[in-house]
Amino acid sequence: MNAISALDVPPLRRSDADGVATLVLDRPSARNALCDATIALLHETLDAIAADRAVRCVVLAAEGPAFCAGHDLKEMTARRADPDRGQAYFEDLMRRCSAMMQAIVALPQPVIAAVEGVATAAGCQLVATCDLAVAGENARFATPGVHIGLFCSTPMVALSRNLSRKHAMEMLLTGEPTSAAEAHRMGLVNRVVPAGTALETAQAFARSIAGRSTLTIATGKRAFYAQAEMGLAEAYDYAARVMAQNMMARDAEEGINAFVEKRPPLWEDR
Amino acid sequence: MNAISALDVPPLRRSDADGVATLVLDRPSARNALCDATIALLHETLDAIAADRAVRCVVLAAEGPAFCAGHDLKEMTARRADPDRGQAYFEDLMRRCSAMMQAIVALPQPVIAAVEGVATAAGCQLVATCDLAVAGENARFATPGVHIGLFCSTPMVALSRNLSRKHAMEMLLTGEPTSAAEAHRMGLVNRVVPAGTALETAQAFARSIAGRSTLTIATGKRAFYAQAEMGLAEAYDYAARVMAQNMMARDAEEGINAFVEKRPPLWEDR
Amino acid sequence: MNAISALDVPPLRRSDADGVATLVLDRPSARNALCDATIALLHETLDAIAADRAVRCVVLAAEGPAFCAGHDLKEMTARRADPDRGQAYFEDLMRRCSAMMQAIVALPQPVIAAVEGVATAAGCQLVATCDLAVAGENARFATPGVHIGLFCSTPMVALSRNLSRKHAMEMLLTGEPTSAAEAHRMGLVNRVVPAGTALETAQAFARSIAGRSTLTIATGKRAFYAQAEMGLAEAYDYAARVMAQNMMARDAEEGINAFVEKRPPLWEDR
Repeated sequence: MNAISALDVPPLRRSDADGVATLVLDRPSARNALCDATIALLHETLDAIAADRAVRCVVLAAEGPAFCAGHDLKEMTARRADPDRGQAYFEDLMRRCSAMMQAIVALPQPVIAAVEGVATAAGCQLVATCDLAVAGENARFATPGVHIGLFCSTPMVALSRNLSRKHAMEMLLTGEPTSAAEAHRMGLVNRVVPAGTALETAQAFARSIAGRSTLTIATGKRAFYAQAEMGLAEAYDYAARVMAQNMMARDAEEGINAFVEKRPPLWEDR
Repeated sequence: MNAISALDVPPLRRSDADGVATLVLDRPSARNALCDATIALLHETLDAIAADRAVRCVVLAAEGPAFCAGHDLKEMTARRADPDRGQAYFEDLMRRCSAMMQAIVALPQPVIAAVEGVATAAGCQLVATCDLAVAGENARFATPGVHIGLFCSTPMVALSRNLSRKHAMEMLLTGEPTSAAEAHRMGLVNRVVPAGTALETAQAFARSIAGRSTLTIATGKRAFYAQAEMGLAEAYDYAARVMAQNMMARDAEEGINAFVEKRPPLWEDR
Repeated sequence: MNAISALDVPPLRRSDADGVATLVLDRPSARNALCDATIALLHETLDAIAADRAVRCVVLAAEGPAFCAGHDLKEMTARRADPDRGQAYFEDLMRRCSAMMQAIVALPQPVIAAVEGVATAAGCQLVATCDLAVAGENARFATPGVHIGLFCSTPMVALSRNLSRKHAMEMLLTGEPTSAAEAHRMGLVNRVVPAGTALETAQAFARSIAGRSTLTIATGKRAFYAQAEMGLAEAYDYAARVMAQNMMARDAEEGINAFVEKRPPLWEDR
C-alpha cells in the first residue's frame, strides 16, 4: 500500500534555500493530522534529508490555523471494522509514528519547529521532539487524549524529556491547553515571537546553524542524545572520545586556525 | 504492634465526594509529623483507595499551620534507648516511609497535594512525590536536615526528580525555606493560589480529572513513571504498545465516538 | 612532565578562611584558559582539599574580565606538529579535563562557582559542574565550539545535566552567549547579584554551609549524585540506608538533641 499516493495532494511541502530545508505540513483541512500518508511522507522526507549533504538544518512548519492535531481519529476509527477490530493496525500505526519521531532525533541535521496555532497530542509531540522550537505568541500546546479516553502515552515520551515532571503531568492529566508563554517558561519552546513570525524566526535560527560546519553539528547532535542516556562517568568517557576525534577533523583544524587568524572559517562542504 | 491505634485520634481523615478522596493530615499539634502511626495509616489508606473503584482522584491536604514537618524527631530519639541504639528501628522506619511514598507513585489514581503553611523534610518529599501540587501563596518548602546533622537523603530522591540539579542542591545544602512563588518557578508546584484556597483549587483540579475515564488515567499514570526510567528507544517501544492497547479499550472507543459525534462521553464505570 | 611548573606564576590561587577554601583562577592574560598547567593544578588542589578536614566548603572564582575561556587553543594547536597530529595528546587532554571535572562532583565538600565576566566552553562546564553557582549580573555563558568547528561535547555532559533539553541544545547549536538572568531562569546558576559581588555572595553561601556538620554534608552530596543515576525503587533503597546510617552518626544525635533542647549544635570536627 502506498499511503502517500492515497491523497490527491501531498500532505507535506519541502522547499530548500541557503542550506535549510523547510518542511510544511500542508493538509490544513485535516488540521495537518498525522494520517498514514503524512507519517510516511514525513519519514521518507527525513530519510532523504539525512542523505542530502546540501541540507544543513531543517525547519518544520505547518499551513493553516492548526500546526498539527495529532493522529487522524477518523482514519483510526475506520479500522475498527477490521476483523481484529483494528488492533494490528493500531500497533503498526504507533510503531510507524514512533519511528518517524525517532528519525527526527537521529537526523544528522538539527530540526527546528516553527509553531503557529494549536499543536495537540502527536502534534505537540512533534514540537517536543524537534531539537529547537519557536512559537508564535498565539500558539497553544496540549496533550488532550484524556478527553477522549486515549491517554497521550507516546507524546508523553517526548514531552517528559522536555518538561519537569509536574508540568508534564499537568498537561497529560488535565488535557488543558498551555499558552506559548507558559510553554516557553516550562522549556517546551525556545522563543516566543509575534504571531505569524515563527517561520521566519526559525529560518533565521536555521540559517545561522547552516553556516556552521556540517560535520561538527552532526557530531554534536548525535553525541547529545547518546550521552543523555548514560551515567556521568560513561558520558564523560564517551564525550571525551567524541571531542578528541572532532579535533582531528579538518573542520576543527580550519575553524581553530581561522579563529586564531581572525578570519572567517571555510568549511569542508562549502 | 498497631502503630495507628497508639494515638487517641487517627492522624488522618478521609472524606470522599464526586469521585475525589480528600485525605487530611490531622495532627496539627505535632505539625502533622510522619510518626509511625501516620505513615502506617497513610499507607493503609492508599492501599484501600487503590482498590476502591469509586475513587478517581486523591487530594492530600493538612490541618493547621504546618502541612507536614517530616519525621517525628521525638519518636525517633526515644529509640536511641534501644539495645542497638535504634539502628534497626531507623532502618525499618526509612523503609516504611519510602514504601509509603512509592505507594503514591504506584497508586492508579492521581494524587494532588494541597499545601498551606510549611512543608519540610519528608513533608516536602510528600509534595514532590504527588503527581500535582497546589500551594497557597504563604506556603513554604524546605529540606532542613542539614541544620540537625541529618541530611534529607530520602526527601532528595523525590525532590531531585522534580527540580533542576542546582535548585535541588540549594535546598538540600542550605536547608533554607523556599517560597511558594519560588517553588512554582522551580517546578515543585503547579499552581500558587491565594492563602487558604489551595484545598479548593486542588479539589477542582481533582474533580476535573475524576470526570475522565478511570482506565485511561490509570494507564497513563503508570506509563508515565515507567517510561521515565527508560532510554528513548525502549520508552517508545513501551509507550507504543500501551497506546495501541488503550485504543482497544471500550473507553477509548466511546471517547473517540463521542468526540466525533460531538457529545459527552459516557465512561465505563459511571 | 610537570605541567604546573611550566608557568612562571601558578595559574590558581588558594586562600582559606572560616572553613572555606577559595580557589581563584589567576591567569587573566590567557582568560584563565584550562591549559595543561591549570587542569593539573586544579585537580591537584581538589585532591588536597578532599583530604583536608579543615575545609568544609569551596568557592571557585577567577581573576580578570573572563571567568574561564575553556581549553587553551594555542596550546592545543601547537600539538598538531606531533607525529600523530596531536591525537594522543587530545585524547589525553580530554580525559584529564573530564577527570578534573568529575573530581569536583566527587569532592566531599560542596563547590560554589562565583562567576563574573564570560564563562565559555569548558569554562561554562566548570560552572555547570559546581554544586551551586552565583553570577554577577554582567556574567555571560556560552558553549561556542560550533563557531570553530569543535562541538562542546564534554561541556555538554555537565550542561545537559543542569538545563532542560531545548535550552541546552540552543546554547550548544547556536554558540550564542546567555545572560546571567537567562542562565538563572534556565537553572544554570542559583543567584544573580550586582556585578562584582558574586565572590562575596558565594563566600557567604559557603560560610553558611561550612557551619554545618562536615559528615552530614559529605554524606548528602555523595548520595545526591549517586541516586541521580538510579531508578526510583533503587534510589529509595539506597537513600533509606544512607539516612538510617546518618541517624547513627554522632553529629545527627547531637544535632537532633540540640534542636530539641533549643541550643546550637556542636559538630564533631569543630
